[in-house]
Amino acid sequence: MPRFALKIEYDGRPFAGWQAQADQPSVQQAVETALGRLDPAYAAGARIAAAGRTDAGVHASGQVAHADLARAWDPFRLAEALNFHLKPAPVAVLAAAPVPADFHARFSAVERRYLFRLVARRAPLTHARGQVWQVLNPLDTAAMRQAAAHLVGRHDFTTFRSSLCQAQSPVKSLDEITIEDLPVPHGREYRFSLRARSFLHNQVRSIVGTLERVGAGSWPPERVALALAARDRAACGPVCPPQGLYLTGVGYPADPFSA
Amino acid sequence: MPRFALKIEYDGRPFAGWQAQADQPSVQQAVETALGRLDPAYAAGARIAAAGRTDAGVHASGQVAHADLARAWDPFRLAEALNFHLKPAPVAVLAAAPVPADFHARFSAVERRYLFRLVARRAPLTHARGQVWQVLNPLDTAAMRQAAAHLVGRHDFTTFRSSLCQAQSPVKSLDEITIEDLPVPHGREYRFSLRARSFLHNQVRSIVGTLERVGAGSWPPERVALALAARDRAACGPVCPPQGLYLTGVGYPADPFSA
Repeated sequence: MPRFALKIEYDGRPFAGWQAQADQPSVQQAVETALGRLDPAYAAGARIAAAGRTDAGVHASGQVAHADLARAWDPFRLAEALNFHLKPAPVAVLAAAPVPADFHARFSAVERRYLFRLVARRAPLTHARGQVWQVLNPLDTAAMRQAAAHLVGRHDFTTFRSSLCQAQSPVKSLDEITIEDLPVPHGREYRFSLRARSFLHNQVRSIVGTLERVGAGSWPPERVALALAARDRAACGPVCPPQGLYLTGVGYPADPFSA
Repeated sequence: MPRFALKIEYDGRPFAGWQAQADQPSVQQAVETALGRLDPAYAAGARIAAAGRTDAGVHASGQVAHADLARAWDPFRLAEALNFHLKPAPVAVLAAAPVPADFHARFSAVERRYLFRLVARRAPLTHARGQVWQVLNPLDTAAMRQAAAHLVGRHDFTTFRSSLCQAQSPVKSLDEITIEDLPVPHGREYRFSLRARSFLHNQVRSIVGTLERVGAGSWPPERVALALAARDRAACGPVCPPQGLYLTGVGYPADPFSA
């Protein structure tokens, strides 16, 4: 039974998250319903697995899932057929690729990349509403970068994980945090890019929410190092809202989509 | 009676255009209703004038309008109060500024700037739906630039104006067309920037729709020169849809917002 990897983009606004839930719209359900139009197993309730189970309101430009299909589809035609059946949901299959039977979208992944978009300006956003987090006043980028440097590396991230997080260990290696500071009309946009093998639940939003406190001048950068060392959820800054968060990419030992 | 210039941003999706119409939502009406919460004349039906009367579905990041208010508002407080009353419409006042009594948002303007966003990729758009025009295949940027060069300068633009256009003369000076070609995930984005003292009705969409035909290889670049010289609406390429169009700025002899 041929296995396919799917690279998926979505606007998280209308969804209760990636994961299928009874009586709530989910991205997973939207993709499975489209698969069900092409393949009897998915019409009968087979499930797909994804690299990152994004929360309600979180977006993706490079989510990866895998599906086992009865037919050896041409990958281009598979993506086109799924996009046809996904309409009008704001979910698109950017690419499909055949993968070995032991490929698993979640367990084979060796890297996840997230982007968090934060805009600082007085006037309410119009074009990017629900797609960025807005604050009113500009932030101190140098201070946020100084604070972020304390978090890079292998650490116990208990402070920066949701109390609901089900990961066995709070120890993770955060490989990179970069912060771009860009002009936007009458404001600034801060783009936080984070890269790690895997993330704890709410880790990105806990980190960005804490760094925003540093950028606003409420926290000195060193307080982030103390918060990390405390290994105590209560030491975390406020968790920022989901709408600025994007799963931008997933890395595998061999990129299924490179061909 | 103090006159104020307002710099206005909006998402055109929910509106039938800038201009107030009976029984249709308009940006003008949204701004006038907000003004009516602050000023009795606008509550009683006074109207505002804008630099560009954008069509249904067209966006703005730098529309300019003017209003005469009974009170000498602090400009910052005026913008904040209008933004409060504009919620939840996707319309924001980016800046307010006092202007002389002879300033007119439309008649004092000496330059309009428009951006048209065109994305070429197979998969449907999710995050920018309704905010760009999508085509399926990549375009030839060099050919589009070559064709666009024929349009720059002072010409009779009869070919590129709507048959409904009410301008007295079809002769306009198009000061600049630039085309940026940017990578987007699994596609390309073409950003057309046009600058002129004023534009004819549907001129930008007629030009971009025609240049897309050149980029797709259906028209040789020279055909655009012939179409212009024909001074015949029938010689125009297809008018492109409104959702990629943004009024990005309006120029005045003295910038009201520079202070």
